Amino acid sequence: MKIELRHGSGGEETGRLIHELFEKYFTNPILDRMEDGAVLPVMKGHPVLTSDSFVVEPLFFSGGDIGKLSICGTVNDLSSMGARPLYLTASFILETGLETETLEKVVSSMAETAREAGVSIVAGDTKVIEGKGGLYINTAGIGERAKGLAISASAMEEGDAVILTGTMGDHHGTILTARLHMKSSLRSDCAPLNGLVESLLKEGITIHTIRDITRGGLATVAGELAEASGKAMELMEDEIPVSEEIRELSGILGLDPLTMGNEGKMMIILPEKEADRALAILRNHPYGRQASLAGRITKGEGVHLITAYGGKRKLLPLRGEGLPRIC
Amino acid sequence: MKIELRHGSGGEETGRLIHELFEKYFTNPILDRMEDGAVLPVMKGHPVLTSDSFVVEPLFFSGGDIGKLSICGTVNDLSSMGARPLYLTASFILETGLETETLEKVVSSMAETAREAGVSIVAGDTKVIEGKGGLYINTAGIGERAKGLAISASAMEEGDAVILTGTMGDHHGTILTARLHMKSSLRSDCAPLNGLVESLLKEGITIHTIRDITRGGLATVAGELAEASGKAMELMEDEIPVSEEIRELSGILGLDPLTMGNEGKMMIILPEKEADRALAILRNHPYGRQASLAGRITKGEGVHLITAYGGKRKLLPLRGEGLPRIC
Repeated sequence: MKIELRHGSGGEETGRLIHELFEKYFTNPILDRMEDGAVLPVMKGHPVLTSDSFVVEPLFFSGGDIGKLSICGTVNDLSSMGARPLYLTASFILETGLETETLEKVVSSMAETAREAGVSIVAGDTKVIEGKGGLYINTAGIGERAKGLAISASAMEEGDAVILTGTMGDHHGTILTARLHMKSSLRSDCAPLNGLVESLLKEGITIHTIRDITRGGLATVAGELAEASGKAMELMEDEIPVSEEIRELSGILGLDPLTMGNEGKMMIILPEKEADRALAILRNHPYGRQASLAGRITKGEGVHLITAYGGKRKLLPLRGEGLPRIC
Repeated sequence: MKIELRHGSGGEETGRLIHELFEKYFTNPILDRMEDGAVLPVMKGHPVLTSDSFVVEPLFFSGGDIGKLSICGTVNDLSSMGARPLYLTASFILETGLETETLEKVVSSMAETAREAGVSIVAGDTKVIEGKGGLYINTAGIGERAKGLAISASAMEEGDAVILTGTMGDHHGTILTARLHMKSSLRSDCAPLNGLVESLLKEGITIHTIRDITRGGLATVAGELAEASGKAMELMEDEIPVSEEIRELSGILGLDPLTMGNEGKMMIILPEKEADRALAILRNHPYGRQASLAGRITKGEGVHLITAYGGKRKLLPLRGEGLPRIC
C-alpha cells in the first residue's frame, strides 16, 4: 500500500495509520492514552528540551536509516547537556507514494533504537504532502538533568583536555558513497550515546562541556565552542582518530574529515586531571573504543590545528554546502 | 536572498541564519545560550509534552500564516491537557528557493504569537531540502500541569455537558477559498487558547475533558473522545455554532462544517452543574464569545446528532482526503 493524501486528513485513515503502525511499534502506557499531549511523571531535576528534523537521503544506508538517526540525534543532544534522555515525540511528514512497508521499516528501526537508548516515544503527529515517496521525521525529546550539574558550551576552562570519542567522518562518508553508488565498506557511526555519557557521570568524572559532532564536523563544532566560551582550542592532528577508509575517500575526493559530519561521536572537555580516567571508561564502552585525547583549551580565541610536523594552522568551520541532506 | 543548500550545512551559513534570523526574533536567555538542548527550570507539576508538524498551503492566509499556526497548534495541544504552555522548540525544513524575506515574516509571526501565548522558543533546528521555495515547521512544546489535575480524553462522565468554544469550520473554509482563489470574507480562527482554558481553571471550574477541534473537525474529534471514554455523545445540531459564510460555502461546495478543521476552537466537557458558569467565563474571553452548550455525554457508544427536526443520526468521522495541507 502507498501513502495517499487521505492518510493525513486527521480522519479515519489517519487514525488507522496511527493505530496499526505507530501505536503497534511505539506502544507504552503514556502514548497509548492517545491524548493531545503526553502527561509525564513529575521530575526532580531540570527538564532539558531539544528537537531536530531529519531529511537524510537515502532513507536507508549502511549502519542505519532515517529512523535510527532520528532517535540518536535527539538522544545525543540531550546527553550532551548531561541529561538522561527519557521521552521523545515523533512527527512524520510523509510524501504521497511512500510505501507503507518502507514506513514500517523506519518505524520499527525507531522503536528498536529507542529501546536501546531506554527512551519512550510518547506523542507524535502525521502529515502528508504531495511528493515522490519521501519521508521527513522530527523528534523532540525531554531529558532530566541532575540539579547542580553545570555541563555547558561556555563552561570549559583553560588547561582542560579535549577528548574525541572516536573516528571522524564515518557517517558523512557513508551517505556520500551511498549517494554516488560507490562500493564501500564504510558504515555510519549513528548510535545513541547516552550510555557512554552516563558511564562517565556514574564514575563521578567532572565534565565541563560535551558536544555532539554532527553537521559541519569537528572543525565547526570546535569553533562554536571556542566562541561560546571565549577561549581557544588546540587540536593535535595526529591524535584525531580517522579511519583508513575515510582517509582514502577524503584523499580521492578532496574532502577534509574534520568538516565531515558524524552521528555517534562527541567532543568531551574536562579538567586535565580527569582525562586518563575518562579515556579508560570511554574505551571500555562499545561506542568509545577509539576515544582519543586530542587537544586542550588555551587562552585566546579560535581553533588551531597542531600539524603532524609541529606546524600550527587556524581551523575554520565548514563553509558552503558540505553534503546536503546528511541527516 | 534565497535559501540555498549551504544554509542547511550546519556550517558557517547555517550559523549566520540562526544568528541573524532565529536568534533575533526568538531571543531569550535560554535560547541565547545556543546549547545542544535547553536546560529548563525545575517544575513542581507534571511536564506535558507534545509535538506537531505544519505543512499548510498557502503559507499566508487571512487571519494567520504557517508561523502563527505552528505556535497555536502546540500551545492548544498543551492547553487541552490542562497544562500551562511554557517552552517550545521550532524546527524548520526549508526548501531551496525560499525567499529569506518570506521566512522572516513567518519567524516574526511566530515570535508575536509566542509573546501573546506567553511561551518562549528555547531550541530549534534548520534543515534545507531541494524544492520550490516551500517551508515546513515542527514545534514541540512542554507545559506544566498542576498535580492532581485529571483532565483526560477518558475522564468524561455520563450526564456531562459538552461545550464548543465557537464556530466550526472557519480555518478550513479560509484555506479552501484561498487555494481556489475565491473572494471571501472568511478569516482563520487560528489562535492560542491557553488564556481561555486558564480563565476556567482560575475560577475553579471542574473540567473532565478538553480537545482541540483541528483536522477532521468536530465529528472526528467527538468520535475519538467517545471511543476513548467508552461513552456516547449527543450533539444538538441547532446549538453547534457555524457562521453564515461557512454555511453558504458548505452549501455551494457540498461540505459538512462538522468535518471541517479549526485552529482556535475547543470542545470542553464538564459536569452539567458547571456549564452555566463556564459558558459565562468563556463568552467573556475574546476567543470564546460564541461559546455554546451543544451536547451531552450519555450511556452507549458513538456520536449522535440530534437534528433541528428532532431526528437522530449517527455522526461519523471524516473519511477520505478532507482538505490536504490544511495545517
